[in-house]
Amino acid sequence: MATYKAPLDDMRFILHDVFDAETLWASMPATAEVSRDLADAVLEEAGKMVEGVMLPLNRSGDEEGCTWNDTVVTTPKGFKEAFRMMAENGWTALSGNPEYGGQGMPKMLAVLFEEMMHSGNTSLALYTLLSNGACLCLDAHATEALKSTYLPKIYSGEWSGTMCLTEPHSGTDLGILRTKAEPQADGSYAVTGTKIFITGGEHDFNDNIIHLVLAKLPDAPAGSKGISLFLVPKFLVNDDGSVGERNGVTCGSIEHKMGIKGSATCVMNFDGAKGWLIGEANQGLACMFTMMNYERVSIGLQGLGLGEIAYQSAVEYARDRLQGRAAGGAQNPNGNADPIIVHGDVRRMLMTMRALNEGGRALSAYLGMQLDIAKFSDDAAAKAHAEDRVALLTPVAKAFFTDRGLETCVIGQQVFGGHGYIREWGMEQFVRDARIAQIYEGTNGIQALDLAGRKVARNGGQSAAAFVAEVREWLAGVADQPALAEVKAPLENALALLEEGTATLLTQAGNDPDAVNALAVEYLDLFGLVTYAWLWARMMLVAAGRDDKLGQGKQVVGRFFFERLLPRAETLLKQMQAGSRTMMTLAAEDF
Amino acid sequence: MATYKAPLDDMRFILHDVFDAETLWASMPATAEVSRDLADAVLEEAGKMVEGVMLPLNRSGDEEGCTWNDTVVTTPKGFKEAFRMMAENGWTALSGNPEYGGQGMPKMLAVLFEEMMHSGNTSLALYTLLSNGACLCLDAHATEALKSTYLPKIYSGEWSGTMCLTEPHSGTDLGILRTKAEPQADGSYAVTGTKIFITGGEHDFNDNIIHLVLAKLPDAPAGSKGISLFLVPKFLVNDDGSVGERNGVTCGSIEHKMGIKGSATCVMNFDGAKGWLIGEANQGLACMFTMMNYERVSIGLQGLGLGEIAYQSAVEYARDRLQGRAAGGAQNPNGNADPIIVHGDVRRMLMTMRALNEGGRALSAYLGMQLDIAKFSDDAAAKAHAEDRVALLTPVAKAFFTDRGLETCVIGQQVFGGHGYIREWGMEQFVRDARIAQIYEGTNGIQALDLAGRKVARNGGQSAAAFVAEVREWLAGVADQPALAEVKAPLENALALLEEGTATLLTQAGNDPDAVNALAVEYLDLFGLVTYAWLWARMMLVAAGRDDKLGQGKQVVGRFFFERLLPRAETLLKQMQAGSRTMMTLAAEDF
Repeated sequence: MATYKAPLDDMRFILHDVFDAETLWASMPATAEVSRDLADAVLEEAGKMVEGVMLPLNRSGDEEGCTWNDTVVTTPKGFKEAFRMMAENGWTALSGNPEYGGQGMPKMLAVLFEEMMHSGNTSLALYTLLSNGACLCLDAHATEALKSTYLPKIYSGEWSGTMCLTEPHSGTDLGILRTKAEPQADGSYAVTGTKIFITGGEHDFNDNIIHLVLAKLPDAPAGSKGISLFLVPKFLVNDDGSVGERNGVTCGSIEHKMGIKGSATCVMNFDGAKGWLIGEANQGLACMFTMMNYERVSIGLQGLGLGEIAYQSAVEYARDRLQGRAAGGAQNPNGNADPIIVHGDVRRMLMTMRALNEGGRALSAYLGMQLDIAKFSDDAAAKAHAEDRVALLTPVAKAFFTDRGLETCVIGQQVFGGHGYIREWGMEQFVRDARIAQIYEGTNGIQALDLAGRKVARNGGQSAAAFVAEVREWLAGVADQPALAEVKAPLENALALLEEGTATLLTQAGNDPDAVNALAVEYLDLFGLVTYAWLWARMMLVAAGRDDKLGQGKQVVGRFFFERLLPRAETLLKQMQAGSRTMMTLAAEDF
Repeated sequence: MATYKAPLDDMRFILHDVFDAETLWASMPATAEVSRDLADAVLEEAGKMVEGVMLPLNRSGDEEGCTWNDTVVTTPKGFKEAFRMMAENGWTALSGNPEYGGQGMPKMLAVLFEEMMHSGNTSLALYTLLSNGACLCLDAHATEALKSTYLPKIYSGEWSGTMCLTEPHSGTDLGILRTKAEPQADGSYAVTGTKIFITGGEHDFNDNIIHLVLAKLPDAPAGSKGISLFLVPKFLVNDDGSVGERNGVTCGSIEHKMGIKGSATCVMNFDGAKGWLIGEANQGLACMFTMMNYERVSIGLQGLGLGEIAYQSAVEYARDRLQGRAAGGAQNPNGNADPIIVHGDVRRMLMTMRALNEGGRALSAYLGMQLDIAKFSDDAAAKAHAEDRVALLTPVAKAFFTDRGLETCVIGQQVFGGHGYIREWGMEQFVRDARIAQIYEGTNGIQALDLAGRKVARNGGQSAAAFVAEVREWLAGVADQPALAEVKAPLENALALLEEGTATLLTQAGNDPDAVNALAVEYLDLFGLVTYAWLWARMMLVAAGRDDKLGQGKQVVGRFFFERLLPRAETLLKQMQAGSRTMMTLAAEDF
């Protein structure tokens, strides 16, 4: 069975010991009231809520799934009540804007909470994450009237939010979308079109659903420069803020999916639905992009959260399951076999999962911190630095967390042997649930293209070089520390590989239009590995000062990362060096 | 939607052009009647059967699944009729012993047929594969009376066969199994115990199910040396060969699984069921192992077959789906976007799938050929050589095919973007179905241990060295061929890496009891990559003589294998060099 306790010790270690979050929070007015004690209390309560409210509904939610009947969606038993309990206790507003009823907690804390939610019940988590995303977008771009009407109600969980981008023929390529918005005499717009893959597009949690919809104005330029963003509520809102008549938007059906079955994935039909413009006309994509960095980290955390529960469950099973004898002699001589955790191959699997999960958690907190600095800092230089890191590392986090999420969930399932394939044990659900995170919120191929193209090739590799320089500088300052004796050389080598990878990318991109697309995935993986290596070195250094199990564990798992996982970087560079030539040779009809 | 045509051109290329199967067949009395024309006709008919009979039931079988009600199992609609059609046309007896009604076709041909069946409907294929396995075991070890009673009926599909090994507490570790067999006065045995994960343990296809059951005699030595094998029919067989009274074996329930939902995975309760000893007392494991090399290749083919249909489906989708523009300029200027096959990243995915599938197909035919030589050759040296290759490469094929099977199915699903996650498109089923093949028939970790421990460390690396020497000798003989100009150096390098990997394994195994277990998975992957590299070089060399699309395709895809996939070998050796030290450090309670 699945086992999960929120990894609070590791979260506190990362927040306080590694990143000294309290000092940062104290330095910025928006977060000045967040103390270490408050943060720890929030995480502890979050853990209790996830373990007590969300996790118990995870398996039943998967078995039951959502059902659709004539525009009405019914969520699995208990989801509605769980959502309401979360809302009543403020969990739907954790990082919301306090001016409109949000709790104003830093993203650095929110990422840890989001990771927990994905461990406990990723389907249920998605409803709140989409609402959060809609709020971020409204907060940044909507008029004061829209904000004060909608934000407090979504933060409070009375209403929910969605993002409506994809259409049947238009996914990655939003420039060709067809949904239309016709201006009306009263300043509103009549929105018409079909959107698909809308998470939480319809459900039974609360009183209203606020859709943020990409559509084209009648005179819009072609392509992605002609897309505008509209707010379209399921029910129109009366002047007093109460819910009024039904708007022209309905759920046409829901998808039958591999996983996240408790999450309603809806086909939404807009039929002259009344909507309001958010931001400027034809600036819809830009509006969406202000929230993209947050959302992509959140979806990355789906991989991480599922990897964590898969790890904890596999550890529990490996300690309990008796099978075979330790290679060096029986360790459980009174039983008829040893627990499988004695076997090297099982150790390899558990250590791989743990090294990837804890490396990912450190990166998620680091990225949350950069998002907070970029948003709240008064220091222009610090802000610019943080923005650069966010731009560079967000696609890395989204894709690398979720690719590693599938990897760790598959490994966790493997530890269970045949039982891992049986539904009642719960491990196979994690694999199915993790798989979507590599696909949605921009496929991982698109993340790689964003990194390699927009974030690296387009600025001549400056951001990537600045990152490498910062890690080198850090390493130079701590290189004589005994805790880093075994990992200094591998980290230096990895930095050189990343540098060479960037050079390879830039050179090839200069000569070959297909190069960025052809090398991007390997480049992103290389970037992810090197970033984890840096963060593992930072954790090992701090952990060396602790004389406890957490400290010892970090030393050992860190060394494992450098010995067994970082070597993947060698292959990635070699693959990049092959370029696009061979893969572009065959004609489409010769496949 | 899923797309599949049996890859007959590639199969014929491998059989005839690469391995000159006809000459081999002509050289052995048991296969002397198998001509090239006959083999091609068999493959063509097999392809028609798979495409026309098995494939149309694949999605519906997954949606419907098997149901259990009071010991009775109902298979999905159409499965029974499809099985009967397969049986009537001889497909359940393809490589069966002709003395008892089998068709006597070589395994080299059977592996290609099995790959097709796994592409078309892996759940349905499993029923026939388990029956085949039971026949192999009976044919090798049972008395003449048992063989003549049971083999013809199972070959004909009137009856089916199963293998009953696993018990709730005893999977990988069969030494601790508890099922008992008490000798009876009439020479039979009363078998009592519970077996789980029994594929096809109960179903509605035909008149009788013949279980081969591992159990312990009352006086059996402890551990794996005290296991015997018994034949236990569902219905006792009358002297005239007709089906008689019900035996004491019933299906207690079926598992709810991640995939292969059309395959009934049964809990089987034996309650004093009448059985007959197969082979010698306490030699049950040895009896099972005579068929293991066949069965493990067959399960490897599950990964390969699913990878092939995932590839073909992804190619079709990538040609049809319009999204974005080619990096070098529009290639479909009259449409509002280009087909996604123009994008480098999509190419990378398709080429990776194809290179792995075709490399795997070559290895499966090679292994089938070695199994045939080992079984049928009169030449003692050729036989010994083939046996050595079979022992060495069978665990590689099982684990590497199935790990690559999950990889290729996940890639295929990724090509479909969001649609890949939706059940109706069929791609997610391939991922779910492929996942089990890494687990059953000995987990892939166990395969790796078999290779690294039993097949390599235990004979001081002699078989591995002989394999490397053979590839080197082959390469020396063809090294001046222009077709190999670009791949000669990488292949030499890969052989050196494998040699170093073997040396690393042997050295560490000499000093550290945990080493084999800790390094085995990476060693197996290294072995798999190098074997594919050799076979790709052989294919490229032969293909250079062809002036057609297949020939050109082989050159390009082979080059891709060497440029983009073989570099994985670098990392694997580095990982091995890290040894077991770090992973064995933490106490079990510190995870």
